[in-house]
Amino acid sequence: MKFAAFGEVMLRLSPPEYLLLDQTNELRMDYTGTGVNIMANLAQFGYDSSLVTVLPENRLGQVAKSALAKYGIKTELLSFAHHHIGSYFAENGYGQRPTHVTYQNRHHSSFGVSDHTAYNFEKVAAENDLIHICGISLSLTDATRDAAHTLAQEAAKAGKKVCFDFNFRPSLNTEPNKLAFMKEQYEKILPYCAIVFGSTRDLLDLLQVPKTGSEDEMIWQFMEKYAIDWFAGTRRTTADSRKQMQGFLYNRKERAVSAVRDLVALDRIGAGDAYAAGILTGYAENWPLVETVEFATMNAVLAHTIHGDVPLTTKEQVFTVLKNPEIDLIR
Amino acid sequence: MKFAAFGEVMLRLSPPEYLLLDQTNELRMDYTGTGVNIMANLAQFGYDSSLVTVLPENRLGQVAKSALAKYGIKTELLSFAHHHIGSYFAENGYGQRPTHVTYQNRHHSSFGVSDHTAYNFEKVAAENDLIHICGISLSLTDATRDAAHTLAQEAAKAGKKVCFDFNFRPSLNTEPNKLAFMKEQYEKILPYCAIVFGSTRDLLDLLQVPKTGSEDEMIWQFMEKYAIDWFAGTRRTTADSRKQMQGFLYNRKERAVSAVRDLVALDRIGAGDAYAAGILTGYAENWPLVETVEFATMNAVLAHTIHGDVPLTTKEQVFTVLKNPEIDLIR
Amino acid sequence: MKFAAFGEVMLRLSPPEYLLLDQTNELRMDYTGTGVNIMANLAQFGYDSSLVTVLPENRLGQVAKSALAKYGIKTELLSFAHHHIGSYFAENGYGQRPTHVTYQNRHHSSFGVSDHTAYNFEKVAAENDLIHICGISLSLTDATRDAAHTLAQEAAKAGKKVCFDFNFRPSLNTEPNKLAFMKEQYEKILPYCAIVFGSTRDLLDLLQVPKTGSEDEMIWQFMEKYAIDWFAGTRRTTADSRKQMQGFLYNRKERAVSAVRDLVALDRIGAGDAYAAGILTGYAENWPLVETVEFATMNAVLAHTIHGDVPLTTKEQVFTVLKNPEIDLIR
Amino acid sequence: MKFAAFGEVMLRLSPPEYLLLDQTNELRMDYTGTGVNIMANLAQFGYDSSLVTVLPENRLGQVAKSALAKYGIKTELLSFAHHHIGSYFAENGYGQRPTHVTYQNRHHSSFGVSDHTAYNFEKVAAENDLIHICGISLSLTDATRDAAHTLAQEAAKAGKKVCFDFNFRPSLNTEPNKLAFMKEQYEKILPYCAIVFGSTRDLLDLLQVPKTGSEDEMIWQFMEKYAIDWFAGTRRTTADSRKQMQGFLYNRKERAVSAVRDLVALDRIGAGDAYAAGILTGYAENWPLVETVEFATMNAVLAHTIHGDVPLTTKEQVFTVLKNPEIDLIR
Amino acid sequence: MKFAAFGEVMLRLSPPEYLLLDQTNELRMDYTGTGVNIMANLAQFGYDSSLVTVLPENRLGQVAKSALAKYGIKTELLSFAHHHIGSYFAENGYGQRPTHVTYQNRHHSSFGVSDHTAYNFEKVAAENDLIHICGISLSLTDATRDAAHTLAQEAAKAGKKVCFDFNFRPSLNTEPNKLAFMKEQYEKILPYCAIVFGSTRDLLDLLQVPKTGSEDEMIWQFMEKYAIDWFAGTRRTTADSRKQMQGFLYNRKERAVSAVRDLVALDRIGAGDAYAAGILTGYAENWPLVETVEFATMNAVLAHTIHGDVPLTTKEQVFTVLKNPEIDLIR
Amino acid sequence: MKFAAFGEVMLRLSPPEYLLLDQTNELRMDYTGTGVNIMANLAQFGYDSSLVTVLPENRLGQVAKSALAKYGIKTELLSFAHHHIGSYFAENGYGQRPTHVTYQNRHHSSFGVSDHTAYNFEKVAAENDLIHICGISLSLTDATRDAAHTLAQEAAKAGKKVCFDFNFRPSLNTEPNKLAFMKEQYEKILPYCAIVFGSTRDLLDLLQVPKTGSEDEMIWQFMEKYAIDWFAGTRRTTADSRKQMQGFLYNRKERAVSAVRDLVALDRIGAGDAYAAGILTGYAENWPLVETVEFATMNAVLAHTIHGDVPLTTKEQVFTVLKNPEIDLIR
Repeated sequence: MKFAAFGEVMLRLSPPEYLLLDQTNELRMDYTGTGVNIMANLAQFGYDSSLVTVLPENRLGQVAKSALAKYGIKTELLSFAHHHIGSYFAENGYGQRPTHVTYQNRHHSSFGVSDHTAYNFEKVAAENDLIHICGISLSLTDATRDAAHTLAQEAAKAGKKVCFDFNFRPSLNTEPNKLAFMKEQYEKILPYCAIVFGSTRDLLDLLQVPKTGSEDEMIWQFMEKYAIDWFAGTRRTTADSRKQMQGFLYNRKERAVSAVRDLVALDRIGAGDAYAAGILTGYAENWPLVETVEFATMNAVLAHTIHGDVPLTTKEQVFTVLKNPEIDLIR
Repeated sequence: MKFAAFGEVMLRLSPPEYLLLDQTNELRMDYTGTGVNIMANLAQFGYDSSLVTVLPENRLGQVAKSALAKYGIKTELLSFAHHHIGSYFAENGYGQRPTHVTYQNRHHSSFGVSDHTAYNFEKVAAENDLIHICGISLSLTDATRDAAHTLAQEAAKAGKKVCFDFNFRPSLNTEPNKLAFMKEQYEKILPYCAIVFGSTRDLLDLLQVPKTGSEDEMIWQFMEKYAIDWFAGTRRTTADSRKQMQGFLYNRKERAVSAVRDLVALDRIGAGDAYAAGILTGYAENWPLVETVEFATMNAVLAHTIHGDVPLTTKEQVFTVLKNPEIDLIR
Repeated sequence: MKFAAFGEVMLRLSPPEYLLLDQTNELRMDYTGTGVNIMANLAQFGYDSSLVTVLPENRLGQVAKSALAKYGIKTELLSFAHHHIGSYFAENGYGQRPTHVTYQNRHHSSFGVSDHTAYNFEKVAAENDLIHICGISLSLTDATRDAAHTLAQEAAKAGKKVCFDFNFRPSLNTEPNKLAFMKEQYEKILPYCAIVFGSTRDLLDLLQVPKTGSEDEMIWQFMEKYAIDWFAGTRRTTADSRKQMQGFLYNRKERAVSAVRDLVALDRIGAGDAYAAGILTGYAENWPLVETVEFATMNAVLAHTIHGDVPLTTKEQVFTVLKNPEIDLIR
Repeated sequence: MKFAAFGEVMLRLSPPEYLLLDQTNELRMDYTGTGVNIMANLAQFGYDSSLVTVLPENRLGQVAKSALAKYGIKTELLSFAHHHIGSYFAENGYGQRPTHVTYQNRHHSSFGVSDHTAYNFEKVAAENDLIHICGISLSLTDATRDAAHTLAQEAAKAGKKVCFDFNFRPSLNTEPNKLAFMKEQYEKILPYCAIVFGSTRDLLDLLQVPKTGSEDEMIWQFMEKYAIDWFAGTRRTTADSRKQMQGFLYNRKERAVSAVRDLVALDRIGAGDAYAAGILTGYAENWPLVETVEFATMNAVLAHTIHGDVPLTTKEQVFTVLKNPEIDLIR
Repeated sequence: MKFAAFGEVMLRLSPPEYLLLDQTNELRMDYTGTGVNIMANLAQFGYDSSLVTVLPENRLGQVAKSALAKYGIKTELLSFAHHHIGSYFAENGYGQRPTHVTYQNRHHSSFGVSDHTAYNFEKVAAENDLIHICGISLSLTDATRDAAHTLAQEAAKAGKKVCFDFNFRPSLNTEPNKLAFMKEQYEKILPYCAIVFGSTRDLLDLLQVPKTGSEDEMIWQFMEKYAIDWFAGTRRTTADSRKQMQGFLYNRKERAVSAVRDLVALDRIGAGDAYAAGILTGYAENWPLVETVEFATMNAVLAHTIHGDVPLTTKEQVFTVLKNPEIDLIR
Repeated sequence: MKFAAFGEVMLRLSPPEYLLLDQTNELRMDYTGTGVNIMANLAQFGYDSSLVTVLPENRLGQVAKSALAKYGIKTELLSFAHHHIGSYFAENGYGQRPTHVTYQNRHHSSFGVSDHTAYNFEKVAAENDLIHICGISLSLTDATRDAAHTLAQEAAKAGKKVCFDFNFRPSLNTEPNKLAFMKEQYEKILPYCAIVFGSTRDLLDLLQVPKTGSEDEMIWQFMEKYAIDWFAGTRRTTADSRKQMQGFLYNRKERAVSAVRDLVALDRIGAGDAYAAGILTGYAENWPLVETVEFATMNAVLAHTIHGDVPLTTKEQVFTVLKNPEIDLIR
């Protein structure tokens, strides 16, 4: 299965060793984003994966391209235009101190100002089997919304699978009528989607699905309505002051949940993308639901133990830890 | 409320990443000290804060000054004389391995050799509302003891509040008659103090208060004797191999204790100063005791999660974690 | 003399040790800009200096503020609004390889979107003796142009000196009619200015002063027209494959030039600002022209030997090297 | 007691801060190996210790020598020949992610190609009281096996104690007849040994000792057969998702076990060597079994909290933590 | 034109900031080698380039692969087998102190032990237009010699261009009869080659061409004999204690030399490969000789100013500096 | 020949990459001092060398000891007492910006407060052939002066050679009568000395030798008076803005000078000690004067190209560069 993702490449800047930005003038530079993270992880898993985005036409665009190539992502579908890349600063938390993310201008980035005319979506659809679209594109700018909708339609037209994640944050959509507007956008893209990542909260708060019957019934009705193959997500809990995570996965008939896993977080950001990459692997390989959800959850657990957003796990590594959860040294 | 602190600026030198001094030749340089830590934290909290000290009249003095300015501390009350700054090496502990601090010559530092004639204490008292004096000044050298006493008297004379912390270490005062001498020094300064940080151990072992009645009674009698407004401190305990901390705070009528908080320590040094800054904030804002002690304790908990001695927390951050203790990501 | 500068604070990001951006993921973070550089240098020289700008209302704004404070710049005139700071990446050159600067979005920065209503210019004018305005403000955005003009007028109205530098880059103004438009803007601000930094190229290409008579005559006519006290700039040449610099300085009657100095460049950026700070020092101190221009040129020479844009020289250091140009060790 | 160890010096290369090799191009370089680790630890404990090995006759050999000297190991018994040093890359694990070790060519290292003719074993035996031989020498190459057997015989002939550790990994010995061959090699060296480090697994799987009677009986029979003074090892367990370790130690009559200790691992590699160094210290000092095993186990616990393979603990530090297990700051 | 190179990938380990290996335990890790350098540079120049080699089948092989991908080199022709990669340590020189390179075992590397059966040379020849073979392969091991000869023959058979560089070091071939043997090997491969990099020294000392007539004649006779299209190389000289370089380039009729260029060396290694990449670019583009040799020489000059072996120059950058040699800042 | 040196070990702290102390909080830690530098260089040259000093009895003393051991210096003659080590901060210069050294308290260091009773000088004299004493000991404190005189006498009594360097700085001896006092001290120690490092300035300004006759005559008279075997030093000059150095060396009959060598300084400090180590090598090996002075001068030239004070050159390296001054790469 050949994968492509449509989404923004962001520059992540983080101080070393849990330092705050006012404690050092050293920063670590990484190129990241939902699409980057998932495609990089799938490339690590051995799949052909591409990114569909617009990068700045300058040194930063070149450097971002070489970073993507290093992750094993194909760079043939990249475009280069304009001069700005979105960025964020991540001050890594420790103990009770939360990780603090500060975004810099994303709306005027090369990606943010590019609508569907900046891309060759027909080619994207023709050359790939499954295309991932991040929900953030629907709320970022008019241009990215336009591009996301167009790509979803082109992909569906070409008979390819569309994978979509809600990635909806109510706190970012508090303007009057914004929620209603966003609801429409999500309702417009969902009919083209085969795989969806989300939560019951997304169904209730954004799509305003009525809360009748069990959670399972609500999800199956939603999947029915939009003819969705797989719906997946995670739940985070705390037990004995240890943070934990559990994955869930529905097809139209069944539901599977993973074991509840302890989280030991070196870097919390990007773990959701590792979960998505794990689910897509099970989808590509036709694994049973339960095998898929266990793999995806352990992949997300391991992503917590790796610096940066990009989950550099391998299939072999995930299987090794699933089989032997106490292993602490491999020679 | 305008704050000033009298105390030594020390140069802290620490190897990176939990390395020992014989494992690397890289060191991190920080400027620190009880006064620096509390004033920096209060500046972060939005208060006007100054440091009253003597720095070396050379490059290190200039560098220390710019470090203080970076923390937001006012530098107008600094003096520059002599050529030596006290320093210490901190090898950060991990797990069962304790943090190891090695002091270098403090007695001959620019601060250590300066008595009250090196300062304009009248100006200090005139321009500030609350003046913090660290108990270490009483035992460091004859000159610093002289300066501390003079400053306490000047401040009281000008009708300003004096805040004092015991910071007494019996192990450093084992010479014959040293304890008796130190007792006299503490008894001499306490009548000028409105806020005192200490422990029952300080009252029993140093001031040799008789152990009659409950701990509360002992503390209230001590406060009565010296007309102290607030007396505060912390207790460290261990539960299920997790380290914990609890703050306490007395006014002349009431006692409040904070919730017992888990400690996850990135850097253990300086957390007591964060507690003090939290208490002073409550004092400045006329917060109720219990609100103050919860704020101060959480501030100390967060200070454990920040590298270096200087607690770079903000009020907003402390409130956020108090309200939502499981938060691990802020965007 | 109390100085203030109006201008953008930019985030500079540079890889260490002459590495390219694709060779490392370590970056050094510095806060810089013409105003920052000159005010920082004047603060190092012992003057009271302030920055007038809008910083983002987030962690980056706070970190920028503490960086300015560290340089000794007063932070009372800073405003905080919006969420973006302009940034640039500097890949340091070596030998024949030029330094390569890549700018990120400056137009939508907190500074870029703020017009005069974001500032209290009356206060700025009231509290300072000399106000520096960078020519870049005239071409950056409509808002910054508005702010620059307003400030120049307010300062002149209050009887304060305005210092202005052309900082004009023809290559950035190639749109049709842009040059004519820019000429108007410069002509509009010059009547308020007492000190101007520029080159004959600026007079010829931008202001389109007719090329009659000698260079000296052209400059004196220009100064006459706008009632300018001092006009200053530098010339860069090459001799025997060694790069060199010479400063010039005019008052209404005389011209002085410095010795031609070799340049050994550790970091080329920001040296012009060191020159400006040197000239302003001579202006503040009423030094003779020739003494001023020698001081300013050597200050610029030393700025080439210091990492980053901000010239951290001291007066004493400049005098020492002027007196003893072969000194290579100070103990 | 004067100690010497025979064994390979390896170059360890590790990325900083839990990064993976594809996330950085910074590496930390350390010189390590079972012999290095034990001798370095004994030198830290105040004993005279030497390493017997062949290092490359080039810059790496010199650098390795100076690294050994830094640990306090005597370098008089080193030889220099050939041009290759064995190396390994250690990607430090975190949480559920295991540490990953990748070995580079060891068979052709200066040590790997050197048989007994490269050494002056007579001198080694004459000048030392106890000689440590690592079991890896028996399986590395024909040359190292030859050297190990010869040294054991020379030492025994000179009346000196030989200390041997099994260090046997079945997974590395899966070729047909390899196990039988290795069994012979171990049986050949054991008669010369006074102290042996191993596990019941080594006795059962490698030496194929029949499993009759209790574990204690099996061990005592084994010790009897080869006239072994002390047999020691550790067991790793997990309780409540905390990793733990317990040491055991037998002489011909008694058995002692240590308290079960929690492990907080900064760097897992090398802790077994710290245990061995602790046991040898008890042997040298004629400490009772139980005191020895407690000391050795705590030494291993502390070695887990120190970066790198080399346990840089001191006797004083081990005693301090044994007495006061909750200590977290030493000034 | 599609390029491929056959050659070893080596791990380069260098201490930072001109430090010696005994002064730090930090190392910078780079993946390099003649083939890597040339293909990376050609990829930077916009060409399709591949590497043909065997990498270890372990973490180091994966990391090397991602490093190549980052340079833009296609990784489809890589094989993975065995477990060792050749490496070298480079202590960067400064002033009169020469750069010091220490090689580690290359003979037993994955590349060193692989003969032609490890590759699909038919595919390599089919998919590329020009194949570069480094002369080191002829002397490294029997296996690499076999592979090099086979590839040259396959490429020629498929009608593709072979590019070969002598890279001959007499000092490494001092065994009796080694020179005669090497002469045979070079004579065996040259008939398949269209482009050759070398020096007159190679012709005289290795091929033992008789020294009759001028240098030009000697070279043209050599080119005639083996039907070589282009022969190119560089000469290093010193003038006024400045190091300099000049390139030369012959086709069968003409000779061109570049301007003599000053060398300012940040990192001396790999500059020859930049020269080769420049020449191949001229060959691919059918540039005139003189244009080609100027481009190639300036490319080599710039390669001296870039850390590491891999020349990360771009065409645009080379042209910019050729046109404007004094440029020191690009914005 | 076995060497020992008596002198202070200092902690040198330097920011990386030519940064100023206010630009970074990273420091590099090195242990240095005249005695350390010379003994380390002699150890690198293959000689048995020891340091005679008092180090603090704490972690810093241990770390200093391991640093000395790493240089190959024997640590048997070290003592440990008190708790302070002298330190200095070195901000590395660049171009016209001089290196700036800031000393911290040296008078109260463990070395500074130790007189002859802290040492076993008899043992020092018995076990070594040549003992180096640095002139700084004569002016540091009463205690170090006492120790230096005692050691010189003990060494002479035991028939061992004493080597002494003036290291006199008039600027540090400006108190009234200080010069006369220092003159006495130097006159008191010189009769015990066989080798002296100094300048004609030392003879004229400190010893107040009358300026009659040529410089050579003055030096020979001085040598005659104190029965000195060898007198040596260097002269620094500038030609064409390149810094240069020339060494000179006298025995009682002859004078030799080295070639004038260009200096390319990475780190200027410690080069004089490299010169001294070179001279002592010639003395130990009975080399002719001219061979010795050339070796010593080139050793000093190379020391300028090595970070830190400690000259980590080898004999082989010095000879290589003497023979082949243009060599820039050794493989």
